[in-house]
Amino acid sequence: MATAGKVIKCKAAVAWEAGKPLSIEEVEVAPPQAMEVRVKILYTALCHTDVYFWEAKGQTPVFPRILGHEAGGIVESVGEGVTELVPGDHVLPVFTGECKDCAHCKSEESNLCDLLRINVDRGAMIGDGQSRFTINGKPIFHFVGTSTFGEYTVIHVGCLAKINPEAPLDKVCVLSCGISTGLGATLNVAKPKKGSTVAIFGLGAVGLAAMEGARMAGASRIIGVDLNPAKYEQAKKFGCTDFVNPKDHSKPAQEVLVEMTNGGVDRAVECIGHIDAMIAAFECVHDGWGVAVLVGVPHKEAVFKTYPMNFLNERTLKGTFFGNYKTRTDLPEVVEMYMRKELELEKFITHSVPFSQINTAFDLMLKGEGLRCVMRMDE
Amino acid sequence: MATAGKVIKCKAAVAWEAGKPLSIEEVEVAPPQAMEVRVKILYTALCHTDVYFWEAKGQTPVFPRILGHEAGGIVESVGEGVTELVPGDHVLPVFTGECKDCAHCKSEESNLCDLLRINVDRGAMIGDGQSRFTINGKPIFHFVGTSTFGEYTVIHVGCLAKINPEAPLDKVCVLSCGISTGLGATLNVAKPKKGSTVAIFGLGAVGLAAMEGARMAGASRIIGVDLNPAKYEQAKKFGCTDFVNPKDHSKPAQEVLVEMTNGGVDRAVECIGHIDAMIAAFECVHDGWGVAVLVGVPHKEAVFKTYPMNFLNERTLKGTFFGNYKTRTDLPEVVEMYMRKELELEKFITHSVPFSQINTAFDLMLKGEGLRCVMRMDE
Repeated sequence: MATAGKVIKCKAAVAWEAGKPLSIEEVEVAPPQAMEVRVKILYTALCHTDVYFWEAKGQTPVFPRILGHEAGGIVESVGEGVTELVPGDHVLPVFTGECKDCAHCKSEESNLCDLLRINVDRGAMIGDGQSRFTINGKPIFHFVGTSTFGEYTVIHVGCLAKINPEAPLDKVCVLSCGISTGLGATLNVAKPKKGSTVAIFGLGAVGLAAMEGARMAGASRIIGVDLNPAKYEQAKKFGCTDFVNPKDHSKPAQEVLVEMTNGGVDRAVECIGHIDAMIAAFECVHDGWGVAVLVGVPHKEAVFKTYPMNFLNERTLKGTFFGNYKTRTDLPEVVEMYMRKELELEKFITHSVPFSQINTAFDLMLKGEGLRCVMRMDE
Repeated sequence: MATAGKVIKCKAAVAWEAGKPLSIEEVEVAPPQAMEVRVKILYTALCHTDVYFWEAKGQTPVFPRILGHEAGGIVESVGEGVTELVPGDHVLPVFTGECKDCAHCKSEESNLCDLLRINVDRGAMIGDGQSRFTINGKPIFHFVGTSTFGEYTVIHVGCLAKINPEAPLDKVCVLSCGISTGLGATLNVAKPKKGSTVAIFGLGAVGLAAMEGARMAGASRIIGVDLNPAKYEQAKKFGCTDFVNPKDHSKPAQEVLVEMTNGGVDRAVECIGHIDAMIAAFECVHDGWGVAVLVGVPHKEAVFKTYPMNFLNERTLKGTFFGNYKTRTDLPEVVEMYMRKELELEKFITHSVPFSQINTAFDLMLKGEGLRCVMRMDE
């Protein structure tokens, strides 16, 4: 604990400008303040959201910034008032938190914490509005409360899941965001029954995680829907039994799915964020019992449209955020699913590079190669 | 059983033409065929759907026809293959049935029976495509498989709920349609928790039944939404604590409701069938856990539109048909709720007339007076 209470100098990948390669810099990381925790990051993965905010095409640019939000680490020191964590605890940082005190945290159904709900524009800690990162005294902005692209970071205690210390951090680090988002959408929200038919729209990492959830739930028929036929082969590892490429059909995807399933699928999960796919996912579920779950985030102007009769015939449409998992309460159990070998995380980790090669991870994602690239901080 | 196997001559109210007063005629009611039951109707009530198909403004006219679908009666005789019912059993006819054999009947979640799902155009029995009603040998059409506006009718066994013989048929007859529809929408689909806030859109009989469900579930705040301020007083008997008249506000009803409930209601039930109300009902529920349920049937061309973010913030939208009650399996238990004095049916029965005055019942409904008018067949 020689570092506790002191500024730590370490390496971090700084995004100085939108779309420009990150540069590994020496940064100063201030000690955690009240309700904050300083975490030594061991592994961090790259998610589309990092790339999206690095490109900064659709939102207010916040630079210089330390991106990163999928990671695994170990508590280095804790600030005042932190009683749940002690140095040495293994943790997963999460971009959205759980204060355990607001109406959402007190509701069994919601994980949209009022205090620690994701805020992509905020570049500082919520306690004092300041950054904990500096380079030669000049502040560097935080990202979604996590900023895991560095050897050390400071995170609100409510955004850290304390996990089984035996869990390999180089694997479970991918549970911080996309994988849990897709998995929970199926397991917590769509809830397919054993033997049911499930359609997954979009076969990226989130969609494949939703598919993994369907496989784990015992779905007997899992239909992948994607515009890229190359996705089918990979999806088979996640339980995909059928593949629909909307480009191969003259009729809308929902009609194709309804026909091939004799009336509709039992559950559908949309993991693209395209409005047509969202509508198709809803309209392809069976009347009487079908449930569609929306995960992907579409353009702000996109409007969901359907005939009300599609609802009145006893269909359900739900949306989810981070798979409805509560950061502190639920995420440790997702790690246990992996430990019990029910959840197969290895399938998602297609690449691994030393942290120094972080721009390679960005390149892979921009080219659409692989699912998750894990970066090793100690190399 | 002197009548079993024979044609019964009795009185029935025949709708000869769209919109013309019904006329009480002597009709011949043939014996029940395979899987059919002949029922002596003791009480029948009038529902908007009868008036809608009598007016025949929006659909193919089917005349001459015996309307009526909310009723209570006693089994007179049964056809071949009927084993669940015997003469003397008390039954509620229902416009939608439960064959117990199709995928919907086998699903715990659906009541949309493939065989006996409501069919408003069909004017005959499904077994042989023939009518069981004649006047001097000339067939008179059936209505939604029930045709309860007569002393005797023939109904498929799957469209009859066998109920507690101690239940007063002059009260429980109203459970055949609208009251169960609203009640089930709340109790079976919206499922508000004790102490929650529920908004009900439309305070007609169905809406008040949905409200009765909220009261029974222990909702602590029940907000009625209606364009007619006179509805508030009556709604108070059903647990209404607040009233919103969208005409009194310059902003949309959903905004008014979100403001007065500090973020949204826990549950909303739409019982009008107006697309704006449907959208408002969905958009007024709280993020994180809110559930909106659609009951009312809108114009065919109406389109439901909303921003996908309203779903992604963890709201749920569901539709229901006949309150998700399965005719044979579930309706007897609704009767028991009345017998246990949990469900207060008397509040819905605002008028009662002899069957001979059936046109008075139509007049009352056309004027919007009262909720349910029960007709006594023996007078």
